[in-house]
Amino acid sequence: MIKYGLHGKLTATPGNGDKLAQILLEAAKLVATAQGCHLYLVSQDQNNNDAVWVTEVWDSKEDHDNSLNVAGVKELISQAMPLLNGRPEKGQELRVLGGLGV
Amino acid sequence: MIKYGLHGKLTATPGNGDKLAQILLEAAKLVATAQGCHLYLVSQDQNNNDAVWVTEVWDSKEDHDNSLNVAGVKELISQAMPLLNGRPEKGQELRVLGGLGV
Repeated sequence: MIKYGLHGKLTATPGNGDKLAQILLEAAKLVATAQGCHLYLVSQDQNNNDAVWVTEVWDSKEDHDNSLNVAGVKELISQAMPLLNGRPEKGQELRVLGGLGV
Repeated sequence: MIKYGLHGKLTATPGNGDKLAQILLEAAKLVATAQGCHLYLVSQDQNNNDAVWVTEVWDSKEDHDNSLNVAGVKELISQAMPLLNGRPEKGQELRVLGGLGV
């Protein structure tokens, strides 16, 4: 079955990338048991800790969208928002065919 | 432990994206047991089957580089090369902190 992938960047205000990444790692724990969630990776650019990437794979876009309702996620979003340097860009959406790890 | 991530696009010649993706899915099976390989996803752009993405996570760049020596991988590369529209772009390298799925 083709899955829904999303690869997106969140840019932190200078020096806050590590803190932002920690919040996203907490979010990963919350969504780990959400319906349809296969992957939720948190990464940083090799030379810029303030460029934080989230790479997600879900059964469907609907499952992804519903994850905003997982208990605790909105609280984490409200912690993350003040650390962001501008609005998040729209992530890259992918049709995930398969491979190792999903 | 921080892991090595690579997110890169291979563009197929028109109409050959599905064939290219199948070859990469075969590659995923081969590297699944390679040292240090955690993730090897094959995806396509939502509106362009000829834009094929590979998203990898390895313990280290060295483990990734060594995967070219896994039995059968070079043969798959030689099958894939004629399907490519130009040289592959250098992928996006990431420092993968963690999350769900690695």
